[in-house]
Amino acid sequence: MHARHYQLGMVGLGVMGRNLVLNMADHGVAVAGCDKDPDQVGALQREAGDRPVGGVNSLPEFVATLDVPRIVMILVPAGPAVDSVIRDLLPHLASGDLIVDGGNSFFRDTDLRAKMLAATGIGFLGVGVSGGEHGARHGPSMMPGGSPDAYARVKPIFEAIAARAGGEPCVAYLGAGSAGHYVKMVHNGIEYGLMELIAEAYDLMKRGLRLTDDELHAVFARWNHAELSAYLIEITAEIFLTQDTRTGKRLVDVILDEAKQKGTGMWTSENAMEIHRPAPTIDMAVAARDLSSLEPERVAASHVLCGPDPAIRSDRTAFLAHLEGALYAAMVLTFAQGMAILAQASRTYDYGLNLETVARIWRGGCIIRAALLDKIRAAYRARADLGPRCHGAGARPPGRRVAGGGRGDSDARVRRLARVPRRVSQRLAARQPDPGPAGLLRRPHLRARGREGRLPHRVEPWLTAAGRTASPGPTRP
Amino acid sequence: MHARHYQLGMVGLGVMGRNLVLNMADHGVAVAGCDKDPDQVGALQREAGDRPVGGVNSLPEFVATLDVPRIVMILVPAGPAVDSVIRDLLPHLASGDLIVDGGNSFFRDTDLRAKMLAATGIGFLGVGVSGGEHGARHGPSMMPGGSPDAYARVKPIFEAIAARAGGEPCVAYLGAGSAGHYVKMVHNGIEYGLMELIAEAYDLMKRGLRLTDDELHAVFARWNHAELSAYLIEITAEIFLTQDTRTGKRLVDVILDEAKQKGTGMWTSENAMEIHRPAPTIDMAVAARDLSSLEPERVAASHVLCGPDPAIRSDRTAFLAHLEGALYAAMVLTFAQGMAILAQASRTYDYGLNLETVARIWRGGCIIRAALLDKIRAAYRARADLGPRCHGAGARPPGRRVAGGGRGDSDARVRRLARVPRRVSQRLAARQPDPGPAGLLRRPHLRARGREGRLPHRVEPWLTAAGRTASPGPTRP
Repeated sequence: MHARHYQLGMVGLGVMGRNLVLNMADHGVAVAGCDKDPDQVGALQREAGDRPVGGVNSLPEFVATLDVPRIVMILVPAGPAVDSVIRDLLPHLASGDLIVDGGNSFFRDTDLRAKMLAATGIGFLGVGVSGGEHGARHGPSMMPGGSPDAYARVKPIFEAIAARAGGEPCVAYLGAGSAGHYVKMVHNGIEYGLMELIAEAYDLMKRGLRLTDDELHAVFARWNHAELSAYLIEITAEIFLTQDTRTGKRLVDVILDEAKQKGTGMWTSENAMEIHRPAPTIDMAVAARDLSSLEPERVAASHVLCGPDPAIRSDRTAFLAHLEGALYAAMVLTFAQGMAILAQASRTYDYGLNLETVARIWRGGCIIRAALLDKIRAAYRARADLGPRCHGAGARPPGRRVAGGGRGDSDARVRRLARVPRRVSQRLAARQPDPGPAGLLRRPHLRARGREGRLPHRVEPWLTAAGRTASPGPTRP
Repeated sequence: MHARHYQLGMVGLGVMGRNLVLNMADHGVAVAGCDKDPDQVGALQREAGDRPVGGVNSLPEFVATLDVPRIVMILVPAGPAVDSVIRDLLPHLASGDLIVDGGNSFFRDTDLRAKMLAATGIGFLGVGVSGGEHGARHGPSMMPGGSPDAYARVKPIFEAIAARAGGEPCVAYLGAGSAGHYVKMVHNGIEYGLMELIAEAYDLMKRGLRLTDDELHAVFARWNHAELSAYLIEITAEIFLTQDTRTGKRLVDVILDEAKQKGTGMWTSENAMEIHRPAPTIDMAVAARDLSSLEPERVAASHVLCGPDPAIRSDRTAFLAHLEGALYAAMVLTFAQGMAILAQASRTYDYGLNLETVARIWRGGCIIRAALLDKIRAAYRARADLGPRCHGAGARPPGRRVAGGGRGDSDARVRRLARVPRRVSQRLAARQPDPGPAGLLRRPHLRARGREGRLPHRVEPWLTAAGRTASPGPTRP
C-alpha cells in the first residue's frame, strides 16, 4: 500500500467500483477498496499497479484506513445488498462520516436510507453513475443528490473524475434527497426509449429496405455525423461490423433477439404513471423488451399470425432521409418525455432540479449523450420554465423568441419535424401494420418466424455482446 | 325496521352500497346498512320502502343487529377509508365473523388486510364489483377472492344478486388472497383499453370521415348488433343522441375532452410491467388519459405542431368495414393482454385462477361485457392452458383443433383479423401520422386547436356525464 490513510473508501470492487477507484487514483485521490471477494481485491491491486490504492477484505480494517471524517462509497447491486453493506458499516462509522451510494438504487430506497442515516449523524448521497465500464474508468456522467453540504465534500473528487463536455465536468449537485437516483432512473428510461427507436429504425432498413450489414453500418455512421449524432447511434454503427468469434458471422445476425429488463426503465414508466406525466415511448420500450423475451409465444404466434410483407419498395434515398428525420423527431420526443417527468417529479418530490444542469451533465460520459442535448441545454438556459413541449429541439412557446441558443430553431423547423413521421408513414403504410392516432388500433408485434426472419428487436443485447456497455446497464440495476 | 336480526350488514351507503343492499333485499336477504352520514342512511330507508332493510348511524348498534357469526360487507372508497372501517369494526366483531371488502381496493392492500385479520380469526374476502349503479341495483358482475370457506358463506347471496348470463350467475369463487381484487383491477385495465379504442375509432370517423353525430350513432348501433356487440359499444351509440340540458346541443360536442385517472387502470399497467407481461394497449390508454388532462400543454402544442389534415377521402363504406374489423381485432388483443396478465399473476401470486371462470363471469353485469367473451370462454373451456396468443378470438395453437366452442375459428379467420389493421392503415396513411412497428416513431398526439377541432379523446367523460356509469368507475378507485 502506498498510503496509510485514504481520502475515500470504495465498497464493492466489481467492474464499476474497480474502475471508479482507478479513475480516482489517476487524479491523485488515494482510495481504499474493500470487497468480500478476495479475487476482486486482487484484481484491483493488480490493475492499480503503483497508484495510491489499497485493497482489503475486512470491513473494520478498511474503515480504519480512511481519513476522518470518512467518505465511503458503495457500488454494489441495487436492493438488499446496499442495505446489507450499510448495516455492516454502521458500527464502524461515526457522526460526520459520509456514505455515498453510487449504484442504480430505486429512488424510494434512497429516501428511506437517507432518513435512517440522518438519525445517526452520518451523511448520505445517492449518486447515479452512467457510462458503463469505460465511463467509470475514463469519465462517467455523475448525478448526485442529497444535502449540499455532503456533496461539497466529494465535489472535488467527482469533478476530477467525471467526463468533460465543452470543458465542463459532467457532474453537478442536482437536488435534495433521492434527486440523483431519480434523474439516473429517468436517464435510463430515456436510454430504453432511444434503444427501441434505433431497433425500429434498424428493422425498417433491414427487413424493409433489405440493407446489408455494411450498408447499415454506413447509414448509422453517416447519421452519427449529423443531427442524430449520439453515443447510441455511434455504437450501433460499429455493431454491424462486429464479428461473432464463434461463428465468424456478423454478431448482429447471430445474436438472440431477446432483451431482459428488470429495473430503471420500468421504474421510469411506473413513476411517470404515478405522477401523471405520460411517457409513451418509454412505456412501449419496456413493453417491447418484455415481448421480446416471450420467445415461445412469439414463435407460436408466427404460425397463426401472418403479417404483411415488410418489404419497402419506395425510393431508398428518399426513404432514408425521411427515416433519419423521423428518428430525430422521435429522439426529441423521448428526451421531452424524460424532461417532463423530471419537471413534475421536482415539484412532487421537492427536488429543486435545474433542468439546464441535468441536460448539461448528460452531454458527456453517459449512455444517452447526444448532440441534441446541447440544444436542450441551451433552451433551458434561455428559459428555465420551459415546458416539455418546447424544450429546445425546435419548438418554442407561441409568440416568444427564445433569447439565446435557440437561434436556429424556428416554427418552420418545428413544422418540418412534425411532418417527417408522416412522410415515413406514407411510405410504410402499404407494407406495415399501423396504429391509430394513439397507437392502439394495431396488434402487438408478436410475429417471429425462424432465425432468419426474426428481428433483433433490441439493440441492448448487441451492445452487451459487443462489450461496449458494462454495468450499470439497464439490465443490471 | 322489519327484522331485529339481519343476515348481512353493509358499511358505506353511497350509491354502490345502497343499491347492493336494495338488490339483496329484493332477493329476500335481510340487510342492515350503516353509514356515518345520516343523509345516506335516510336515503337508504326511503328507497327501501317496506323491504327487510335496516339503517343506522352507530356501528355498535349496527353490529348488534347482525346474525352471528356475522357478515359485514364494506363499500367505501379504496384506501385508508377501508382500514379505518375495519379498525372501527374490530372491537365489535368476534372470531368466526366475516368481513367482505367490495370496493376497488389495491390487491396488495387486500393481502395485507387478510393477513392482519387472519390473526384475529375473522375471515376476509376481497370482492371486485363491476356494473356501476345500475349493476349494483339489478345485477353486477362480482369477483370474489379469499378462502373458499369464507366464500361459501356469502355464495347464496352473491349468486342471487349477481347478473346472469346464459342462465349462469356472473359470480364465482376466483381464488386465494387478493385474487378477486386483482381480477377486478385487470377488468378495469381492459375497460381503459376498450374505451381508448372506441375513442380512437370515433376520432377517425368524426375528424376523418366527418360523420355527424346521428351517423356516428348509427354506426355504433350497427356495430353493436354484430361481432363488436359490447356494453361499451352500446352506450357509445346512445351517447351521440344524448343532449346537454344546459346548451341543448349534443353532449358529445360540448363535453371537455379531458379524462382523469388514478386507479385500477394505472395499477394494471404497473403490475403488468412488474410481472413482465406487456399490456401495450392498456399502457397507451393510461398515457392517453394523462395526456388528455394536460390541457394547457395541448393548447400550447397546437400552436407549434401542425399535424396533417385528418380528412379521410377513401370510400366511406369500405373504410367503415375496415375500421369495424380493426376495432374488433384490437378488442381481441386487449382482452388477450388482460388474460395474459391474469395467467402470469396466477402463477406469481398463487391465485389458482381458472380463466374460463373469469371469462364466464365477465359476460354479464360488468362494464366490459361483450359477445366476444363467449368465444373466449369457450376457448378456455376447450383448453385450460390456452396461451394468451390464441384465446378464442380465432387463433388456435398450430396443428391442433380446438375441441369445442372454437368451431368457427380458423386460421383463415385469424389471417383476416391480422389484415384488417393494415387495411385501415393503408387508407389512413396519407392523412395520419403513423408509428413504427412498435408505435414509437411518432409524436404523441399533443395537438389541440380550439373547441371545434378538439377531439374528445376519451369516452369516459361522456359516460360519466351521461350518467351511465356510477362508481366504481375507473376514476373512482
